[in-house]
Formats: sequence, structure tokens, C-alpha cells
Amino acid sequence: MMKTIDLNSDLGEGFGQWKMGDDNAMLSIVTSANVACGFHAGDPAGILQTLKAAHKNQVVIGAHVSYPDLVGFGRRNMDIASDELIADVIYQIGALKGLAAAAGTTVSYVKPHGALYNTIANNEYQALAVITAIREVDDNLALVGLASSKILDLAREKGLCTIAEAFADRAYTPQGTLVSRREKGSVLHDANVVAQRMLQLVTEGGVEAIDGSFVRIEADSICVHGDSPGAVEMARQVKMTLQQAGITIQPFIQTCK
Amino acid sequence: MMKTIDLNSDLGEGFGQWKMGDDNAMLSIVTSANVACGFHAGDPAGILQTLKAAHKNQVVIGAHVSYPDLVGFGRRNMDIASDELIADVIYQIGALKGLAAAAGTTVSYVKPHGALYNTIANNEYQALAVITAIREVDDNLALVGLASSKILDLAREKGLCTIAEAFADRAYTPQGTLVSRREKGSVLHDANVVAQRMLQLVTEGGVEAIDGSFVRIEADSICVHGDSPGAVEMARQVKMTLQQAGITIQPFIQTCK
Amino acid sequence: MMKTIDLNSDLGEGFGQWKMGDDNAMLSIVTSANVACGFHAGDPAGILQTLKAAHKNQVVIGAHVSYPDLVGFGRRNMDIASDELIADVIYQIGALKGLAAAAGTTVSYVKPHGALYNTIANNEYQALAVITAIREVDDNLALVGLASSKILDLAREKGLCTIAEAFADRAYTPQGTLVSRREKGSVLHDANVVAQRMLQLVTEGGVEAIDGSFVRIEADSICVHGDSPGAVEMARQVKMTLQQAGITIQPFIQTCK
Amino acid sequence: MMKTIDLNSDLGEGFGQWKMGDDNAMLSIVTSANVACGFHAGDPAGILQTLKAAHKNQVVIGAHVSYPDLVGFGRRNMDIASDELIADVIYQIGALKGLAAAAGTTVSYVKPHGALYNTIANNEYQALAVITAIREVDDNLALVGLASSKILDLAREKGLCTIAEAFADRAYTPQGTLVSRREKGSVLHDANVVAQRMLQLVTEGGVEAIDGSFVRIEADSICVHGDSPGAVEMARQVKMTLQQAGITIQPFIQTCK
Repeated sequence: MMKTIDLNSDLGEGFGQWKMGDDNAMLSIVTSANVACGFHAGDPAGILQTLKAAHKNQVVIGAHVSYPDLVGFGRRNMDIASDELIADVIYQIGALKGLAAAAGTTVSYVKPHGALYNTIANNEYQALAVITAIREVDDNLALVGLASSKILDLAREKGLCTIAEAFADRAYTPQGTLVSRREKGSVLHDANVVAQRMLQLVTEGGVEAIDGSFVRIEADSICVHGDSPGAVEMARQVKMTLQQAGITIQPFIQTCK
Repeated sequence: MMKTIDLNSDLGEGFGQWKMGDDNAMLSIVTSANVACGFHAGDPAGILQTLKAAHKNQVVIGAHVSYPDLVGFGRRNMDIASDELIADVIYQIGALKGLAAAAGTTVSYVKPHGALYNTIANNEYQALAVITAIREVDDNLALVGLASSKILDLAREKGLCTIAEAFADRAYTPQGTLVSRREKGSVLHDANVVAQRMLQLVTEGGVEAIDGSFVRIEADSICVHGDSPGAVEMARQVKMTLQQAGITIQPFIQTCK
Repeated sequence: MMKTIDLNSDLGEGFGQWKMGDDNAMLSIVTSANVACGFHAGDPAGILQTLKAAHKNQVVIGAHVSYPDLVGFGRRNMDIASDELIADVIYQIGALKGLAAAAGTTVSYVKPHGALYNTIANNEYQALAVITAIREVDDNLALVGLASSKILDLAREKGLCTIAEAFADRAYTPQGTLVSRREKGSVLHDANVVAQRMLQLVTEGGVEAIDGSFVRIEADSICVHGDSPGAVEMARQVKMTLQQAGITIQPFIQTCK
Repeated sequence: MMKTIDLNSDLGEGFGQWKMGDDNAMLSIVTSANVACGFHAGDPAGILQTLKAAHKNQVVIGAHVSYPDLVGFGRRNMDIASDELIADVIYQIGALKGLAAAAGTTVSYVKPHGALYNTIANNEYQALAVITAIREVDDNLALVGLASSKILDLAREKGLCTIAEAFADRAYTPQGTLVSRREKGSVLHDANVVAQRMLQLVTEGGVEAIDGSFVRIEADSICVHGDSPGAVEMARQVKMTLQQAGITIQPFIQTCK
């Protein structure tokens, strides 16, 4: 059977005069774009430009929703009430849908960003708020979450399509969670190593954990970054290595429902 | 032939802990609600609450789009580039559409707010940006503008449905424009006078101008305010006076296309 | 010995067109004003107006610093890095000092707001950030904190003057902490009861706890609220009851150093 | 007589995760730093870092105050009321003074940014608001304005010290105003040409205007940019060329009063 995998990246993360990453380079590499919605990054004009470029590159679009925290780039945990989080997520998805319509394309999935992503992997209260938001605004939207995290089960129980995600440049614990950024070796910097690990992920269904053991990770999509020239190069190498091994890079979303 | 008119009001204009106006009272009076979209007022949770109440009251919903100016409540002119204004308007409409979907309802029209409303009545550059935004996100949305202003012609030329608006508590020049707020007598405070003027507007197609002459105003909708107990009472009296004269209060939007 | 106590209140908490509380009424009652600095509430023009009114009423001014969370009114916990919190607090104190200078007055103390206030009562990491911020910008500023909380000891160790605060309308546990708002009876609504409790606080050095026992509270200042007509009335009654018992209401800050 | 000139640059213009320009490189070149205050750019932690680096480099500090327009980087004209503009400017100066105190340094002057800078060169209404703000918060602060613009006369009349500014990379009209960015040749890109022009400015008291005539410009300070590697290089060359000609680069502010 032919192996396939999706490559996704965080895009549209500038704000006004401030730029971040090389969206055009990444859009020639990835098959899915997590586009900022204005709460951690992304002004409307910049988001629209990214959406038009994504559409031109036939890249599938997801809403990269966040806590309302521009100055903190959505990376700080916030103790936000459920009804506020639900409305915040709906607002962001709606805004991105509007801009996507103007760009001639559509939003296919939702990927929470930063602190919200990490929190809902384990915090059922906020996880349910995100799931409720998606269901209320458009239950055809898939939810991207950390592979093996509880939120994916919860989302499926509630009727959502889910996309399990692995991170190309992160080390894993033997339990399949990410090694904390505070620990040594948590982030991988060698593009060759990263590319080989992702090849192993797709062909063997897991990677070598930080203790040397093999850990199973069932991932539908691999997240690659584009916020530095080195990051873009690493993403390119991951893609090339996978393709040369006969793996098809395609949006997972197409086969979701 | 039976006379009809639409009554609209600006709602959802709180922000977080700050409240403004009595949305519930106004939703029992008006047939159309211009709901804030977050740029001059309105946080997602508050907007959603207003949308749910509007839906319950069978009130038609419009997107009350604004310049990005929370601290100035969208009342300050901004020299904003066309592509930025287009994207800002699309973003707001999209966000409101998302929240409306979650509330079980839909957005039917767009009414620019405050300084943007006044500017586009005459500034073709920004008027075209707003029209373009509406067409790109959803050309079924009608545009509310000042009765007799150029933007209504422009919008129709571009294929949009338009709704001409009169203001219940404002004095008019003999030319049919609003008397500037800086001039004496520009704002009317007597609920009886206001109600009688609106009756004249609907039955005779115009009102008495500030110089005593009769000025024709072809209005599809009357804007009433709800930001003080007196304002709510005035709105109620306008409605009652019109209904007692046999005029049907109904959303104009229903007969638009 | 003559008994004295300070009365403080949160003021300047409007934002642009949105008003909150009756600053003028409260400025005729309290001796210390905790003035918002723009992060949870307060736009510069509104803050300046409150400062001028406070100066006219000879009310001592404190900086009511907050997490950067306008939409959440500073009431949501944020997991903010120490260097960011330090700079945020300095920025707010500096801004208020600038506006106070323009109003012909000065800032005398710092009272953290909302979630930040509650967090630093126990979280030493964030408490130290606030203390460091005050020391770096102006170590003559006193710090207001919950009576008996650890942050007061910590601040004194670091050389800051401290002001221990009691809350007029809140129930206390036998341990001297506030009964959580989520529990029944946590907020007191009877102005007479509240006034008598505060009289007891000043004359006996403590109040009746929620379990009926007597709990010692050494407070230098009593916080009263002004966000509703009833709240203003309660504050007035607290003051009158204290004064009638011969207690002098005066800013604690005057005797601090 | 020994010739001297000040070199200034806009710094601290990042925001949270977004960076702009190379502050460290520029701080080794310029003698005055216009530091963002949070309204067009600059978060408190980033501003504090820039202030500490400026202090270490013995660079004089100015408050780069702006309209409240983060997404527009302060480059969009805003029709802001006088009392709001006054309070906004005071707030920003105060905030920067607070952070400067924490960095062990002080604020010496105010330079309005972007659209505000251009507007007040000719709009007396907003110019007076800025002047009033400076006088109310600290009348020892000098005001930087476009050389030969009316605001400098107005500020001196009101008792402020002024600093006349020339732009290194901009073409001038024969009248001494800047050639609009919309016109061809308005921005100069050749570092040698720019450096020679600035040498002419200092030694001859003017430069060649866009029509080839000589235009007198009495400048106390030259603005150089640092928002690209090329810009930093150009700034370096301007400085070197001036120094090699025996001109002393020093803060103008030191000789102001």
C-alpha cells in the first residue's frame, strides 16, 4: 500500500509592518497551512495575502486559533472562562473563513496555537471549549492535535474529524509526548537527522525516543517550521527525503471524511 | 398600498466588563440589529450573546464594521490604505458570520460604523474599499448607507443591494444631509417630535428640514438608538406611533432581492 | 491613642466611551485612589481626568497595575515570564507617574489588580517580579497587598514600604484569607453589617470569620467599591460609621516612611 | 570653530516576538536613540532592553511617541481630539521615563513618530497638543521636529527647547521640505551619495535640492535608519565620512539649555 503523509506549517504570522517567516517558501513545500487568525499574530491584510498565496499553491488551509495575546504571541497560558474561549475560537474561525472566501478558497481544519495547543492536549475543560466552538461554527472542520493526546479521542467522541500531528524537529519521550523545551536535546537541529526520523515515522509508525527506545506515533501530518532560513531548508529536506522514499506528500484532510 | 419600514439599532457594543446600551430592550423594538464586530466594540462572548438574543427575537442581523479603533470607539477618521480597509471589513464580516452561525442565524447586511460610515458617504476611495470587501466575502449582503448619499448609487452599480437609512433623532439640511453635530439643533431630544417626524418620513417621503422647508428622504430603514433609558423610550415611541398609523414595522432586507 | 484608617477604591476604570463606576462620588469618600494604568482598564485621557479629580479632592494616588488583558479586565491568570511582568509593571507605573505629573500630583503606592493581586499573594515568582519592578522604577512607592499575605513580608525584606489591605464586603476564613467568590456568603451585601464589621476591624483588630470565630486582621487600609449605586452607598456608610466612632479616615501612606 | 552634529535613529521598534532593525548595531553608531513607547511599536520588555543597551552605549534617549496604531505602525493619519492626543503623548513619555529610570538612564527629548510627525509639521491643532503634553509632563524635554517646520517655532514660543532634524536618505524640495515618498527620487539609496550630502549639510548648512539648486537646512541632528543591513551600513558610512572630515558626532541635547 502507498504511504502518504501531510506536511503542515504555521503561516501568516506577521503583524502589520512586522514580518515572520518566509510564507512563500513554505507554501512551495507544505500541503497544509495553519494560518494565524489575528489573536496571536496576523493582521487582516497580511492574512488575506497568505490565503491567496496558499490558494495559488493549492495548499489546504487551517485556522490557527489562539488565546487573545498578541504581545505574548499566544505562548502564555491564560485561565480563560469556557464561554469566552468558545466565542474567541468561533470569532477567529469565522474571520478566517471570511478572508478565505475572499481569496477564493475555504478553511478545512482548526489547529490551536501555542499555549492553547499545549493546554488542551491535557486540560479537558479548555479542550471541550475548543471542540464545542468548532462544532457550533462548522462541524465539517477537522481538529489538529498532538498525536496520542486525549483531545483527539474527545473530539472524535463529539463527532469531529481529527488529524494527529507529529513535530519534525522535536524529541519524544518513551510515552510519546514531546520532551519539554526546557530539557536538553528537546529540539533537533540537524536537517538530515530530522528528515531520517520523519522517514522512520511514516514507514515504521514511530521514532526513536530520547532514551533510545522506539515509540509508536500514529501521525497524519508532520509539522515543519519556516521561521528561519535554516528551518525552511530543514522542511525542504524532510519533504525530499520522504518523496525519494516513494511517500506521497498530500493533505490528510482530503481523506478525512 | 400598505406602508412598511424597518427599524435598526446599533447593538452588541459592550466590551468585556464594560456594558453599553440595553440590547434586550432594543431587540424587543427593532427589526434589524447592527451588531459590533470587535473593531470599535464587541468582544466575541458579548457579540455571541447579542446574536443569540437577536435570533430569539427574530431580528435581522447586520455587521456593524468599523475602523480598528477600540479606544476611540471607531469615531475617529483614519487614513487607511484601501487593501487594509478591504481586509479589515472582510475580517469583521467573517467573524460575525461565524458567531451568527453558532447562534443559529445569519448575517444579512453590512452597516459601516461611526467615522467609517460618515467618510464613505462621500469619500469614493474608501467607499469602493467597503463595497469591494462585501462583494468578495458575500455579495448577497446588502449595504446600509445614508439616504441619498453617493455610496448607495456606487454600491448598486457594483451589484450590491442597498438599504437607505434615515436617523430618527437627527435634524436634516434642506439638501437632505445630516446637520453637523457641532451645530445647534442637530440632535432632537423630544420623543414626540421625533416620532411625528418619522411618521411624516414614512407617509410623506420626507421631513421638515432645519430651515423649515420640506426635504425628500427616501429611506428603507430608520436608525434608533438605545444607549440611554431615554433613547430606548424614544425608540419605543417611534415604533408605536408608526404602528398606530397602520405602518408595518418589518425588516427591509426581506424584500431586497 | 487615636485610631486611624485609610479607605481606598479602584478608580479610572473606564475605557474610551465605556464608563465604569462613579469616580467623582468615590473621590469624596476615599482617601486613596487605585488608578487604572491602561492594561486592564483606563485610557490616557480618562486616567488624566480621574487624576485631576483625585488631586482636587486631595486623595492619595496609587498605580493599579495589571496583566495586559483589556478584554478580560485583568481578571484572568496569565503565565507571564518574570522579565515581561517586571517591564509591564514598570511601564504602567511610569505612565501613571507621567499623567500624575501633568495633573499636578504624584503616585505614592502600587496596588496590583485582579488576577495579579491574587496570584502574587501566594506565588513568590510573580510576587518578586512586582517587587523588583517597584524597586527599579521608584523604591519610595509602597506596595498594597492582602493583609497577612506572604508578599507583604517579602516586600519588606526587599526594602519596600507595605500597606496591608482588608476588603469591606468580603467574608474571611478563620485563617484570615478571603472566602472564595465561588462559595456562598463570600460577598456581603448589607451596608450596615459591612460598616459594623469594619468598625470591629479598626477597633478590635479583626472581624468575625465565616465560621463565627474571631480572626485577627492587621489592616492599614480598607478597600471599598464604587461600581454600582449600592456600592457607593455602602462605602459612604462605612466611612460614616467609622467617623462617628471617632476614627480618623486618612491616607496610610502619610505615615509610611 | 569646531563643527558638531547629532546622529539619531528610531529604535526599540520590535513588538513581542517580532523584531525590527538591529538596535545593537545602531547603538554603536548614533548618539541619540528615539525609542518606541508602545503605541506604534515596542513592548515593555523589549523597550527596557533597548534602553539598557542605549545606556551602556552612552546614547541619549528620546521618546518616540505615536498615534495609538500598532497594526498601522503609527503611519496612518488619525483625526484625534486634542485632549486625547495630549493624554496619549503624556502616557507614552511617562511610560518611557519609568522604563528609563529602571535602566539607570533618563529621557531627554521627544520625537513624534510617523504620521504624527508629518501632521504636526503643519497642523497647528495637533502640534499644540504635542507641545502642551511635553510641557505638562516635563518641560525640560526637547522636541525634535523637521528642520524649518512651523512646529519648531511654535514649540520655542511655548518655551520648549527644540532640535531641528534632517533626513540622511531623503531628497529635499527647493523649499526645504521633504520630497514626497510617492515621487521618483524621494529616497536615496547610494551610501556614498548620502554620506557626501550629509557632509555638505554640516559644512555648508544645506544640500542640493531635487531640482539641482542649493537649499539651506539648519539641522541639529541627522536621522539615519537601521531597519535593513544596507541601512545600517549607510548609517555607518555617514558617520565615518563626517568624522573623517573632522566633525564631532555628539548628542545635540547636551548643548540645548
